[in-house]
Amino acid sequence: MSGNTIGKIFKITTFGSSHGTALGAVIDGCPAGLELSDRDIQKELDKRKPGTSKITTSRGETDEVKVLSGVFKGKTDGTPIAAVVYNRDMNSSVYEALKNKPRPGHADYCWKTKYGHYDYRGGGRASGRTTIGHVIGGAIAKKLLKTLNIQVIAHVTRIGNIDADEVDLDKIQKNIEKNAVRCADLKAAVKMEELILDLKEKGDSVGGIVETIALNVPAGLGEPVFDKLDADIAGVLMGIGSVKGVEIGSGFKSSQMKGSEMNDEFYIDDTVKTKTNNSGGILGGISNGMPLIARMAVKPTPSISLTQKTVDLKKMENTEIQIKGRHDPCICPRVTAVAEASVAIIIADHLIRSGFIHPDSL
Amino acid sequence: MSGNTIGKIFKITTFGSSHGTALGAVIDGCPAGLELSDRDIQKELDKRKPGTSKITTSRGETDEVKVLSGVFKGKTDGTPIAAVVYNRDMNSSVYEALKNKPRPGHADYCWKTKYGHYDYRGGGRASGRTTIGHVIGGAIAKKLLKTLNIQVIAHVTRIGNIDADEVDLDKIQKNIEKNAVRCADLKAAVKMEELILDLKEKGDSVGGIVETIALNVPAGLGEPVFDKLDADIAGVLMGIGSVKGVEIGSGFKSSQMKGSEMNDEFYIDDTVKTKTNNSGGILGGISNGMPLIARMAVKPTPSISLTQKTVDLKKMENTEIQIKGRHDPCICPRVTAVAEASVAIIIADHLIRSGFIHPDSL
Amino acid sequence: MSGNTIGKIFKITTFGSSHGTALGAVIDGCPAGLELSDRDIQKELDKRKPGTSKITTSRGETDEVKVLSGVFKGKTDGTPIAAVVYNRDMNSSVYEALKNKPRPGHADYCWKTKYGHYDYRGGGRASGRTTIGHVIGGAIAKKLLKTLNIQVIAHVTRIGNIDADEVDLDKIQKNIEKNAVRCADLKAAVKMEELILDLKEKGDSVGGIVETIALNVPAGLGEPVFDKLDADIAGVLMGIGSVKGVEIGSGFKSSQMKGSEMNDEFYIDDTVKTKTNNSGGILGGISNGMPLIARMAVKPTPSISLTQKTVDLKKMENTEIQIKGRHDPCICPRVTAVAEASVAIIIADHLIRSGFIHPDSL
Amino acid sequence: MSGNTIGKIFKITTFGSSHGTALGAVIDGCPAGLELSDRDIQKELDKRKPGTSKITTSRGETDEVKVLSGVFKGKTDGTPIAAVVYNRDMNSSVYEALKNKPRPGHADYCWKTKYGHYDYRGGGRASGRTTIGHVIGGAIAKKLLKTLNIQVIAHVTRIGNIDADEVDLDKIQKNIEKNAVRCADLKAAVKMEELILDLKEKGDSVGGIVETIALNVPAGLGEPVFDKLDADIAGVLMGIGSVKGVEIGSGFKSSQMKGSEMNDEFYIDDTVKTKTNNSGGILGGISNGMPLIARMAVKPTPSISLTQKTVDLKKMENTEIQIKGRHDPCICPRVTAVAEASVAIIIADHLIRSGFIHPDSL
Repeated sequence: MSGNTIGKIFKITTFGSSHGTALGAVIDGCPAGLELSDRDIQKELDKRKPGTSKITTSRGETDEVKVLSGVFKGKTDGTPIAAVVYNRDMNSSVYEALKNKPRPGHADYCWKTKYGHYDYRGGGRASGRTTIGHVIGGAIAKKLLKTLNIQVIAHVTRIGNIDADEVDLDKIQKNIEKNAVRCADLKAAVKMEELILDLKEKGDSVGGIVETIALNVPAGLGEPVFDKLDADIAGVLMGIGSVKGVEIGSGFKSSQMKGSEMNDEFYIDDTVKTKTNNSGGILGGISNGMPLIARMAVKPTPSISLTQKTVDLKKMENTEIQIKGRHDPCICPRVTAVAEASVAIIIADHLIRSGFIHPDSL
Repeated sequence: MSGNTIGKIFKITTFGSSHGTALGAVIDGCPAGLELSDRDIQKELDKRKPGTSKITTSRGETDEVKVLSGVFKGKTDGTPIAAVVYNRDMNSSVYEALKNKPRPGHADYCWKTKYGHYDYRGGGRASGRTTIGHVIGGAIAKKLLKTLNIQVIAHVTRIGNIDADEVDLDKIQKNIEKNAVRCADLKAAVKMEELILDLKEKGDSVGGIVETIALNVPAGLGEPVFDKLDADIAGVLMGIGSVKGVEIGSGFKSSQMKGSEMNDEFYIDDTVKTKTNNSGGILGGISNGMPLIARMAVKPTPSISLTQKTVDLKKMENTEIQIKGRHDPCICPRVTAVAEASVAIIIADHLIRSGFIHPDSL
Repeated sequence: MSGNTIGKIFKITTFGSSHGTALGAVIDGCPAGLELSDRDIQKELDKRKPGTSKITTSRGETDEVKVLSGVFKGKTDGTPIAAVVYNRDMNSSVYEALKNKPRPGHADYCWKTKYGHYDYRGGGRASGRTTIGHVIGGAIAKKLLKTLNIQVIAHVTRIGNIDADEVDLDKIQKNIEKNAVRCADLKAAVKMEELILDLKEKGDSVGGIVETIALNVPAGLGEPVFDKLDADIAGVLMGIGSVKGVEIGSGFKSSQMKGSEMNDEFYIDDTVKTKTNNSGGILGGISNGMPLIARMAVKPTPSISLTQKTVDLKKMENTEIQIKGRHDPCICPRVTAVAEASVAIIIADHLIRSGFIHPDSL
Repeated sequence: MSGNTIGKIFKITTFGSSHGTALGAVIDGCPAGLELSDRDIQKELDKRKPGTSKITTSRGETDEVKVLSGVFKGKTDGTPIAAVVYNRDMNSSVYEALKNKPRPGHADYCWKTKYGHYDYRGGGRASGRTTIGHVIGGAIAKKLLKTLNIQVIAHVTRIGNIDADEVDLDKIQKNIEKNAVRCADLKAAVKMEELILDLKEKGDSVGGIVETIALNVPAGLGEPVFDKLDADIAGVLMGIGSVKGVEIGSGFKSSQMKGSEMNDEFYIDDTVKTKTNNSGGILGGISNGMPLIARMAVKPTPSISLTQKTVDLKKMENTEIQIKGRHDPCICPRVTAVAEASVAIIIADHLIRSGFIHPDSL
């Protein structure tokens, strides 16, 4: 059944696949009066665009976006905003050979089982290209967030066995622009890039961790008991292709902590704050005004050129495949744009849900 | 706004708080013809009931459930199933003192900010007692799952710094019944219980990890791109109070792996299987027929009796509190019932969403 | 699948059937801080209660309501409000005879086809008794509306071939309290009551029209293009048992009018008003500040004691039945309470949707 | 807030306005394996296209549709189907003069109040052109319905004071193709066309009634108590611009009937049928297998060229306007396509909801 919409008030419906005609999104529930241009969306799409460095796929897409509706004289008018990106540089030929041989680590087998008839070219709608829809929605969400001075930044904190050192919040944005890995620890970034290139050469790939930070989120976002802010963030991040884990604040470390260590004590500093931020800005599913911290574990790109064992679904026998095509040896750098977009969408939705932004007009 | 419903077809709406009149749930979308009795639900509630061992709170609740609707002559009739548990052993007095002093690690401050007027007694609706609603819904979900031979088991794999060894899938259920911690590694269970009791004595608490396994889940569950099976599981598990992290299959370990290690190769064994299960049974957000594995990181219970720093929201000044009341030094054992229920609800919903169970009648 | 919830932010989920244990509703999305007592709900339930006059069924139900959650110290606390009414005076015996013989005009046959196993006693969940849930939700909606001085009144304008004369808006409320038919034209009311009693004696029943008026609804409610205010009102009214038609403003008469007659011209009277109100207060699906007028056509009660032809579903042959039990010869008077509740629920939901009421707290 | 999506499983999200770049729809939840081409959609769009006869507007739009996604090798693939129609023949100049002078009978004033900043050209998103989205969704729904031999036909039964005689179900489709009014009574059709042209000449407009019939709908569609089939149909039809009333089966006539007249008696004719069809194919909100009959009252087009009184919202004073531009003197003929589409969408959604069509693949 349907499953391509996210959000309860600020709603994003996305469409399109890797090798189809176009990809895009319809954003419904954006209040009227928000300044918005194609350029605002293009800027975000450019962050996830392929082919911008040595460590990404060489597929040559400009990913040029065109807004079709919902904007009047430079401002949103409260009606649905449809935006489209046409596919240009498709090379479907390599996928014909893989048609009945599901690629390990990919969704091919699951899609075949579920839909019978499906677009297997380049992963079809299971492709990372579908996150173009996320980023379109996220670009508009970010514009909404900006009206409340809320900022969302995602950066890479681990690639394989290389962990980045912690970097001051105010330097992260600046540092990640300086390297292709989008890692704020510039020394680690060098090693990460080397590792990625090394594995690329070997026909292999590697995973990592992406951390998303949201600053200036007001206290009070999140709807108990099922639509909690952390529940919604966990859902959207886990839903990004290749993500296998999500944690908030101290995350998995909390499992090893004592209450006396984990609890963030409150104090007055004009407003109410906590000294530590083990909670990652969310308590009981509701934001507490501290920086919101979410990390996601990204698995290594399943498309590797090494020979792999699989099955032939037609003959129902074991076989082997070698995947050709153009792939990212590590998707972490590009997926930061998707993480930012996803978290921004959730926050924008909750800002309206909780009355911080008027649902009809700014 | 509203946020107390989960599911798209098989929908659970829960209500009630720690110290109110009653708690319960309305389950809408359960097909007609499912055998169901109060006893089926009671059995599951008893697993999360307080006061069953030395390591849980001493609050004396029988948590007796009564079904009010939706069942006719021992079978569901396709109409909403309402079920209620009345609160009995409430002791609200201790909470009056804490009214304007938010407990560190708790949602008090967030609720005060969000709702102004709220029930602060025992956490109100932010209390773990609200998971009674999850368990009611989960009990019915499990009955549905049973018609397809699907089984959901949650067990404790870590308490603080004690990690359980891996145990064969077929022994987990039996072993967890043998100890209060619900850990399948019986040796580790002894140490875990000691650790919990030790911290209880010290007025402290401890976190842990709960793993949920679902067996015999058919391939094909999960709706790309936002309503993926792993996205929905991550959302529901992160939404359980005190959960700070969720991972599927290899989870956070995948961030350190290479594609050639992570990819689960396919082979034929009557049907299509994978040799390893790093994916945790989900690829591209859709189940692949292998066991579904989800782990969640549970923080230490925030209610500890040690003195803690906090603020007085009325006077807007720093202060200290000592929390009295009856609390679990570690909620992991009891939260296994909630994890099972939550995952069962998501799977039941997806079974109907994907046509494995008829939406109107069995 | 599930279908027992209405509203997008202010959400009502109802449960229960004619001869089950209890009926009730869970209201999720009511902001915190609204004064609410059992009495507020009871008052509305009493309007639809059976047995209050000669022209209603003699089933003796007190329909006493009990709030189980969501209210703290006399005010809503932002969490779900569950309220329950237990069935008392059930007489199921008469229905056993009808088990396989669907009553003409009733849903029996449809339920049997759809659910197989269902509660056929007294219509089960297809009974008018399920509107107890509507009225509980409506009572809370009305309290919300009152904070903005919005009033919702339903009255009977036709019974069979007797049409009421138009009555000034400010007299309607007073007049309908004076007669059992709840008709504002007191002369017509007398004739209507005679007609109903006459048909009751003959073992027959009669239909009518109920008009619902909402005063002081602000301009700006309604979400184009599918969630328009009139679309939502039409949906909820048509969903009330026995309703076969809904119209707004001039309704079906508009089909015979010219544009120059139908268009309501604007003029300034402090604010913008229209001289006529053919639109019934809604233009393009959005409220325009004029009184909101909705009428619904109510069919005659299908339960009549005259012999009727039907089929035996077990033997698959034609047969006859005579319906016993206690029935309203005309449900119009009692259904006014349901119409008010239904329209109030929709308006309350839209007031929050459109930012007139804060979603979290008053 | 958002309101541009209809359906619970088979979901249509529409976008675009009268004078923007493009209009379109995203259909999510269409199972894989349905044959679908641009031509299938174009055929339906051509029915509502302007400029096809003397009695419609002369705006010259080809309304050419292009499918962007969701179709692979001529069949749907289970992913969202996006389809777009670009606006070509826009003439916005005439609307500048009306910017602050709301047109009587139109949504201008309501939109201004609600959104502040909005696209006032040609009604913007309140324009009848937005029903292009309905028709795109309906075209796909009809293809789904065809797999179960279900047919949906809408025809005009009244224009102004001219009522069509009843026509046999099997002749309706053929007859409506023979005249521009789409009326099955060919004699009445002639008079209707004359009336429309006469009023067009006088700068006026006229209303009418459109009846929609669905044949071969299986018994069992509709979800009590809020998502009833008739409730959903009433909602979608009332949401079409200019519709002021909806009725099912005997509709408003039922208000004048006795139970003994209204009740449709059952009999066996292979399957269970009713002799009469006062219910219009729906009992208790669930289809009963008889032809589904829904009528809607369409008000006269509010755009008339006669001088009308209105207000100047900037100066807040009374004024007059004369509307130029190109308008339909009666939208009934063209709105039949929208009625068919709308009812088809609802039925398609309910067929999946009730398990008659598999949610993932045909």
